[in-house]
Amino acid sequence: MRILGIDPGLATVGYGIIDVYGNRMHAVDYGSILTPAGMPTHKRLNEIYRALEELIKKYQPDDMAVEELFWNTNQTTGIRVSEARGIILLAGERNSLNIFEYTPLQIKQAITGYGRAEKKQVIVMVTALLNLPAPPKPDDTADALAVAICHSQCRASRLAPYYNN
Amino acid sequence: MRILGIDPGLATVGYGIIDVYGNRMHAVDYGSILTPAGMPTHKRLNEIYRALEELIKKYQPDDMAVEELFWNTNQTTGIRVSEARGIILLAGERNSLNIFEYTPLQIKQAITGYGRAEKKQVIVMVTALLNLPAPPKPDDTADALAVAICHSQCRASRLAPYYNN
Repeated sequence: MRILGIDPGLATVGYGIIDVYGNRMHAVDYGSILTPAGMPTHKRLNEIYRALEELIKKYQPDDMAVEELFWNTNQTTGIRVSEARGIILLAGERNSLNIFEYTPLQIKQAITGYGRAEKKQVIVMVTALLNLPAPPKPDDTADALAVAICHSQCRASRLAPYYNN
Repeated sequence: MRILGIDPGLATVGYGIIDVYGNRMHAVDYGSILTPAGMPTHKRLNEIYRALEELIKKYQPDDMAVEELFWNTNQTTGIRVSEARGIILLAGERNSLNIFEYTPLQIKQAITGYGRAEKKQVIVMVTALLNLPAPPKPDDTADALAVAICHSQCRASRLAPYYNN
């Protein structure tokens, strides 16, 4: 099964696509969608939507795993990231992906075994787990791969209510 | 010219469409898009996108005027409203509308002459200015008409930089 992990943002959207076979994982593609600061917000949001649709059409993932917003004190940033997050969820929904959301705590816990792990530890573990030639850059890309890995581990329990029916 | 005013939200999106001829205004249609609380967020966002596209295709407005988020202390609400706001901006952009954003202060100032006016005063003025048979309900609908009226008054100055070129 193929998972598209997303680390939301307006200036930078990290994405990571992994294939999962039993206990094995393989990174298919990863990188970042960038939008220029000088562009009006609605045009940046459309850029994100278009780029994501392109990725989904190209790689045809089954599930989308999206990081939930970690709230910080900058409200303007929070608003803009949330607007971009809405676009990301819409792109998944309109392209028939199963959508799952994970908190930063859940992601760190899944990757490092410790919910308050530092960003550096997450990057080291992502690189090791996917056997990557080098740590993925920028950090948003590593975070996107991390949420995809988190979903690969959590999906059995997330899907359980449906299988139990 | 025809303006689509929007008061963003996840559970309730207010919309108001007005025609403007010189100093005269006429309400074409107004109401609310509602999404059920039990539905997953990504499906509610898609409902909003679909309903908005339908309105845009039916009424073919020239401009979209959207209220900026007034930040309150409830972060979860703020995040969800912002996600919906992203969808609204995307629907406008992907349907080639000119998009403008106004703060609650600008809207109240334009409608009542006083930036800190109460909600009740705004509703009374919207009803009077558009010569409506009754105050629009729910409040989100009145707020959407208010941002459309605000844009009808402010658009000359907002467009000025382009005309001056």
